[in-house]
Amino acid sequence: MTVTLGVDLGGTKIAAGLVTPGGVVTRQRSAPTPAAEGPEAILQTIVDLATSLTASAPGVVIAGCGIGAAGVIDPVSRTVQFATSSLPGWAGTRLGAEIERRLGMPVATVNDVHAHAIGEAVHGAGRGERTVLVIAAGTGIGGALVIDGVLQAGRHGAAGHYGHVPATEAAGLSCTCGGTGHLEVIASGPAILQAYLRRGGTEPGDTREIFARADAGDALAAEVIGVAATALGRSIGGSINSVDPDLVIVGGGLAAAGSRWWNTVESQARAEAMGLLAGCRIVPTSLGANSAIVGAASLINTAAPALPNTASLTP
Amino acid sequence: MTVTLGVDLGGTKIAAGLVTPGGVVTRQRSAPTPAAEGPEAILQTIVDLATSLTASAPGVVIAGCGIGAAGVIDPVSRTVQFATSSLPGWAGTRLGAEIERRLGMPVATVNDVHAHAIGEAVHGAGRGERTVLVIAAGTGIGGALVIDGVLQAGRHGAAGHYGHVPATEAAGLSCTCGGTGHLEVIASGPAILQAYLRRGGTEPGDTREIFARADAGDALAAEVIGVAATALGRSIGGSINSVDPDLVIVGGGLAAAGSRWWNTVESQARAEAMGLLAGCRIVPTSLGANSAIVGAASLINTAAPALPNTASLTP
Repeated sequence: MTVTLGVDLGGTKIAAGLVTPGGVVTRQRSAPTPAAEGPEAILQTIVDLATSLTASAPGVVIAGCGIGAAGVIDPVSRTVQFATSSLPGWAGTRLGAEIERRLGMPVATVNDVHAHAIGEAVHGAGRGERTVLVIAAGTGIGGALVIDGVLQAGRHGAAGHYGHVPATEAAGLSCTCGGTGHLEVIASGPAILQAYLRRGGTEPGDTREIFARADAGDALAAEVIGVAATALGRSIGGSINSVDPDLVIVGGGLAAAGSRWWNTVESQARAEAMGLLAGCRIVPTSLGANSAIVGAASLINTAAPALPNTASLTP
Repeated sequence: MTVTLGVDLGGTKIAAGLVTPGGVVTRQRSAPTPAAEGPEAILQTIVDLATSLTASAPGVVIAGCGIGAAGVIDPVSRTVQFATSSLPGWAGTRLGAEIERRLGMPVATVNDVHAHAIGEAVHGAGRGERTVLVIAAGTGIGGALVIDGVLQAGRHGAAGHYGHVPATEAAGLSCTCGGTGHLEVIASGPAILQAYLRRGGTEPGDTREIFARADAGDALAAEVIGVAATALGRSIGGSINSVDPDLVIVGGGLAAAGSRWWNTVESQARAEAMGLLAGCRIVPTSLGANSAIVGAASLINTAAPALPNTASLTP
């Protein structure tokens, strides 16, 4: 059997798996991201996970390794162009070249949100569809456009910053990117928490607590969730008018927060979409936590010649 | 020489031309759109223009005919799915099949705004670029995303309705599409006229007159133009964050209205774009009135076998 290695590199955890051409994860390992130790420690953790998985499956042909990593990854040089403070020193890392050299197999690199989107579009809820818009709503708002199974990552690999578009509900609010009035500062998880505090709500532990309070009858909690979901839904409706997708897949932490949020997002998106497009399907993700591993792995062409796994790929 | 026929079918005029594979229009004819006479008269006008052009170029091989037409054109059935009141009865017209039967050559169909965008992206300002976002701002706000020379028209052929996305500056205003708060109702040409009147301006003849008054020192005229250009620029900046294009091409009647409008659109788009993307090139169209003819013609693959033009294609 030919499989590919898929790696999901986030700020707190690195997960890796062996993935079949059909998108099934057969074996999986993970380790904490040694963020504070810097890029070299992160690279070594990826290699260790890959080596361990490879050793666990003797006789299996591994066609290559796809990595979905936090940060903006240049699609040509496979170098990290930009990273947030959660990964100090990560920008500038020659991710693709370094892992390729150490593992001795073809390596493809992509942003982790993009990997998630590819996984869902190709092997998850979007399987078989042509034009798939994936929106992830959680700590931030991002996503990707996948057309005929191919990620449209743009010139710098930075496409899909759907949280950084004008939103009426965010008018005047400062955005994390330096801009003003962006969707993300009213519709993300932290934005819901901030809005609740700004409007005089009693300190909750986290965004999850605001959802619990809304369910328990807290009108302010219900309202800030409603405004956030409305802003996101309207923006998704605008994206439907712009892209005319076959399918919109909505994932991320907020999408798992229950029907209150989901129903508002979906109804507002439909209200915003033009007549011909108002029936556009809007569905939740289906692959769960494995989507980025599956998406990253799918970047490797398993039809290409590959050497059998001799379990001797350790550097 | 092998050429293709390109047709630009608008609400008031039908223009047709012979176009080289390099995107040069060698001969051109036009006629008024017989909108009031209905679809059959429109189809016959296209055939008459095509026949006339064909007869004018004996010995030239015509590989096929590309048509950019007003309305939403289904990409598979080549039937008009939706049309505005400017073309009564146009919806439902089997445009591709009817013209193909009457001309006896391969016919490709696309929306006229899409044809314009393809022309600019492939043979105009976007020549040689990979990911090109084209925005047309005039009576409406529309455009298209062209990736590697291929229009991304979406499921129904309706992609590119960039005027129908939420815009803060349009909050509360009713849109022509039935929605509320869309970019088009604050940033289009008619929207500028409406805003000027709503704010108490003395009846101007048309939007052009408002630009003239702004240049002559009318503060209200300058302000409504500024708000319109700001809204469009911010929305383009959001699209840059979403798409990460190599290039944004801005055309349409408003793009030709002078530096007051253009400079605001460009600076607001840059202010909205995230750091890595703020340098994205934003340029005007370069093909002028021929862009839709060139774009429609480019849909025909001139490398495919074609019969020589015997000037006998009249039905």
